[in-house]
Amino acid sequence: MMKVAIIMGSNSDYPIMKETEIILEKFNISYDTKVMSAHRTPELVIEFSKEAQNNGYGVIIAAAGGAAHLAGVIASSTILPVIGVPIKAKTLDGIDSLLSTVQMPSGVPVACVGINQALNAGLLAIQMLGISNSTIAKELMAYKLALIEKVKNMKLEK
Amino acid sequence: MMKVAIIMGSNSDYPIMKETEIILEKFNISYDTKVMSAHRTPELVIEFSKEAQNNGYGVIIAAAGGAAHLAGVIASSTILPVIGVPIKAKTLDGIDSLLSTVQMPSGVPVACVGINQALNAGLLAIQMLGISNSTIAKELMAYKLALIEKVKNMKLEK
Amino acid sequence: MMKVAIIMGSNSDYPIMKETEIILEKFNISYDTKVMSAHRTPELVIEFSKEAQNNGYGVIIAAAGGAAHLAGVIASSTILPVIGVPIKAKTLDGIDSLLSTVQMPSGVPVACVGINQALNAGLLAIQMLGISNSTIAKELMAYKLALIEKVKNMKLEK
Amino acid sequence: MMKVAIIMGSNSDYPIMKETEIILEKFNISYDTKVMSAHRTPELVIEFSKEAQNNGYGVIIAAAGGAAHLAGVIASSTILPVIGVPIKAKTLDGIDSLLSTVQMPSGVPVACVGINQALNAGLLAIQMLGISNSTIAKELMAYKLALIEKVKNMKLEK
Amino acid sequence: MMKVAIIMGSNSDYPIMKETEIILEKFNISYDTKVMSAHRTPELVIEFSKEAQNNGYGVIIAAAGGAAHLAGVIASSTILPVIGVPIKAKTLDGIDSLLSTVQMPSGVPVACVGINQALNAGLLAIQMLGISNSTIAKELMAYKLALIEKVKNMKLEK
Amino acid sequence: MMKVAIIMGSNSDYPIMKETEIILEKFNISYDTKVMSAHRTPELVIEFSKEAQNNGYGVIIAAAGGAAHLAGVIASSTILPVIGVPIKAKTLDGIDSLLSTVQMPSGVPVACVGINQALNAGLLAIQMLGISNSTIAKELMAYKLALIEKVKNMKLEK
Amino acid sequence: MMKVAIIMGSNSDYPIMKETEIILEKFNISYDTKVMSAHRTPELVIEFSKEAQNNGYGVIIAAAGGAAHLAGVIASSTILPVIGVPIKAKTLDGIDSLLSTVQMPSGVPVACVGINQALNAGLLAIQMLGISNSTIAKELMAYKLALIEKVKNMKLEK
Amino acid sequence: MMKVAIIMGSNSDYPIMKETEIILEKFNISYDTKVMSAHRTPELVIEFSKEAQNNGYGVIIAAAGGAAHLAGVIASSTILPVIGVPIKAKTLDGIDSLLSTVQMPSGVPVACVGINQALNAGLLAIQMLGISNSTIAKELMAYKLALIEKVKNMKLEK
Repeated sequence: MMKVAIIMGSNSDYPIMKETEIILEKFNISYDTKVMSAHRTPELVIEFSKEAQNNGYGVIIAAAGGAAHLAGVIASSTILPVIGVPIKAKTLDGIDSLLSTVQMPSGVPVACVGINQALNAGLLAIQMLGISNSTIAKELMAYKLALIEKVKNMKLEK
Repeated sequence: MMKVAIIMGSNSDYPIMKETEIILEKFNISYDTKVMSAHRTPELVIEFSKEAQNNGYGVIIAAAGGAAHLAGVIASSTILPVIGVPIKAKTLDGIDSLLSTVQMPSGVPVACVGINQALNAGLLAIQMLGISNSTIAKELMAYKLALIEKVKNMKLEK
Repeated sequence: MMKVAIIMGSNSDYPIMKETEIILEKFNISYDTKVMSAHRTPELVIEFSKEAQNNGYGVIIAAAGGAAHLAGVIASSTILPVIGVPIKAKTLDGIDSLLSTVQMPSGVPVACVGINQALNAGLLAIQMLGISNSTIAKELMAYKLALIEKVKNMKLEK
Repeated sequence: MMKVAIIMGSNSDYPIMKETEIILEKFNISYDTKVMSAHRTPELVIEFSKEAQNNGYGVIIAAAGGAAHLAGVIASSTILPVIGVPIKAKTLDGIDSLLSTVQMPSGVPVACVGINQALNAGLLAIQMLGISNSTIAKELMAYKLALIEKVKNMKLEK
Repeated sequence: MMKVAIIMGSNSDYPIMKETEIILEKFNISYDTKVMSAHRTPELVIEFSKEAQNNGYGVIIAAAGGAAHLAGVIASSTILPVIGVPIKAKTLDGIDSLLSTVQMPSGVPVACVGINQALNAGLLAIQMLGISNSTIAKELMAYKLALIEKVKNMKLEK
Repeated sequence: MMKVAIIMGSNSDYPIMKETEIILEKFNISYDTKVMSAHRTPELVIEFSKEAQNNGYGVIIAAAGGAAHLAGVIASSTILPVIGVPIKAKTLDGIDSLLSTVQMPSGVPVACVGINQALNAGLLAIQMLGISNSTIAKELMAYKLALIEKVKNMKLEK
Repeated sequence: MMKVAIIMGSNSDYPIMKETEIILEKFNISYDTKVMSAHRTPELVIEFSKEAQNNGYGVIIAAAGGAAHLAGVIASSTILPVIGVPIKAKTLDGIDSLLSTVQMPSGVPVACVGINQALNAGLLAIQMLGISNSTIAKELMAYKLALIEKVKNMKLEK
Repeated sequence: MMKVAIIMGSNSDYPIMKETEIILEKFNISYDTKVMSAHRTPELVIEFSKEAQNNGYGVIIAAAGGAAHLAGVIASSTILPVIGVPIKAKTLDGIDSLLSTVQMPSGVPVACVGINQALNAGLLAIQMLGISNSTIAKELMAYKLALIEKVKNMKLEK
């Protein structure tokens, strides 16, 4: 089965992106986590992106903050779907990261999730892989039902 | 092959969402376009979403403006990947639509594209379907190469 | 007399929404507090909303953060007035919650109060019930007069 | 039955607020429309607000733009529910009007609707009056069902 | 000589507004500090504003946060210049307070200073009083020169 | 009596600032209108500001857009009150002009009015001059009463 | 003397960027204008950037809108100073372009000018080249003096 | 070789601007750090700016927060390139500082870097000096390669 690549601009993003790893593991999806930067190692990013499909990846998740170009640059060099996670940086509360990730031009989409929503990025990758994989689809359905049960059983701690 | 569903909150969104249809047709992807509203026909939306996978859909694209809840409500009721297109409404220049679409809570992702970026929504759906379909993958590569050529050959009209 | 329903997307919203309960109790208004999520348990939300009037509710208060769809989804399925409380989430300081709650489309209003203003949501519900209930109206007037006295007697701690 | 008051800061707001009148007429709700300004005729506003309940009003709708204080000032002087309609002014696309209307302090709520959403203000007023009036409630249900039908029958003009 | 009135919506604003008192004292300007709320005691506010000129005030400073209507309501009822101090509230970082204070309609100006800039409000009041008072004008010049000296003598603590 | 100076960064601001002239003329206040730019002729601006008081000015009004530094630079070099008018520029709808004008540091206030609110800038200047001039004060009161009458007599063109 | 490179993401940016050419020509600076896209032809962009210094360029100007990554990607691959021009796109009034261009991470600066400020980008490039070129420096001084004269001679068309 | 001037509005900006000094020292660039304020000591600022070129400076870096006019005022009085560093102030998270610094009018550019990005300001100055200095250019290339290596060798601390 195809793997998921998790790319982040700096290892300081890892505490947040760890949630992506956890959800992928929960669904037994193979993944690789790498630090590559659109601004410091752009050629590495492009090289990786161009070979990603051949190297067995099905989806690429990219996390970056500020002028967050990582997801966009990856998307420029692959036909795989690219999921962008805007990481809240030290100023502006994530709005710069969000706009830099989501406002891509015609022809080069990025699938943007909410600010710092690393778990959702993983889940979205799993949904993409589940389109044509009935095992994953069943597990997603089970996950959804468990979520429903969890909310139904929530107790208010008054 | 799996179909794509294009759902929009109002037929006033159709002039923008037509671009989604055009790109899907270009890639010979079957699709259905429907008007359903999270706020006016929520049960229809949920019913459709719950049955979407069984009815042969692989991806759902949802377009809405303002307090844009459509993509989120669909995502609540399906395990298929849901692509959200924030439509610029009469005020606030699309920022309300964008935030309402992208800032989804943990466990229920929406793959958000740029404001009014209907073509990108279609392309992202095609990329998702292409993960496990080598024909689509090849066509996506050809599309990307054509895009590169087009930019390379751009002439400035001085 | 009719009850007020307090619905919140997660029990993490309860510390804020407790203020709604306190003001309702002060006015001896019956209420039920429930956790239901537009994104995790949408059918539960819709089912509840459709039956709310029959079940003796007069007003529904809905609190949610981020892509805050809860009030809107409830409003889609009831003719009761729905009060939305935008809850400040981890990023963006509440502006996403506010816009997602207030910018509803034509035909499906939500009565939005300020970010995190749970007390005001309760008070607004009481005002609505007080339209045709002179006892409540009198208590509201007493409350307003007490507020005036409190401000008049404020001492600056120099 | 109780009347609805429609107050606007300037007669330049009337083209938008006409929608409120139309929806109220559709439900056979009596209303009065007045021009009063929190900044030009504050005493008139307060006097009106203090007497509104005695004068047979059940709900007050206030529309204003920019530093939109009208709804807040009315709410300061009545126990009736006050619905605020933020009117988009010449600059800032309505965000100033929205924040000035919705961010009310504890103890003095305003029920804010979306920017320029005059129809929704009227509908919300009707919902409030319908809490204890089964005729209105039935008409609201009919209105909602008609809305559903309208969306169900929407045709895309391809 | 004419006095300055410092009005604030709540005594929780006093720690910030204390800076206004300090600068006024430095220039030996008489002042009164009062708590009055546009939303809780509007009549008090209007009554005070209408009599302010007769009661010996030359300038009114008004501080409020959120939907900050205090300065605007005062300005509606006096011909004295009104200085507004937007106070940063719990959410939105002061932008709501700023827009509610500054975006006044034609005919009713408020002289808005920066968010939380209580000292500047005081200094601006002193400048206004100094227009026709050469003693104050001289002291303002001395203050400005001292400020210049202070900056000139700043040492960087390396 | 003291004059008012109207300074603008470019003569393209004049169509807006004409309103300032009109209101000053209505109150028989002498004024001079000049084009000077904080970014193109800073020394001229400072020189003018330093001599303004000696040259018979009582208040300075400064209008600028974008990175609107004009009011701030003038305020740096005079002890007269400086009124800033943020002019809406080609992008960002005036928010850059507003923040650049109003967010002045401690010790150097600018009295900011609403975006493009040239009339209010003039009126505020008149109010400042009226603090110690009973003729102006009386005219301001008459102006206010006329404004009230005008609003009271507004007819809705239905 | 070193040349300036003007790179834009699309030829639709040319009507704005033409101003850059005009100012460079005014100062007799050689330049090349090229269309290259960070998202469509990233390798071309990187290849160009890596060779820019060797190919005789001294400064690179990059113009892009929306998720404006062009300047950042160029800056990643050259040691030449890179000037970014945020181009206002169809939605959000340029704020996305601005934040995507300016908020670069540590170690990879972009010199950002105002939204759509193509002339300033050219002028800034000339200033950079003028640091070590006394001819250019003299011309810049002449240009500045002419600007001062122009403002001094501005007539208000009353 | 030409020096770099680091100007800041207040010594409270020094903890951030220290990073500029550190990077300049790393490249053996001479610099002077001064406290001067556009609002408190404008003449000093203009005098310094006018003489900067003659006094051996090649680039000026200006840091300020809030209504950040420092870089703009310096740019008004020199033909040297001016780099602006928007410093995050107590409210608004740096957006006021950013817009006040970057949105300069035609003819007077400022090279703006990201909010609080003092290191990048220094690096940009070095790049400007490196245009015509091959020693600096070589060191910049070495710095860039080291940055690439650092990212390549990043280890995730799982």
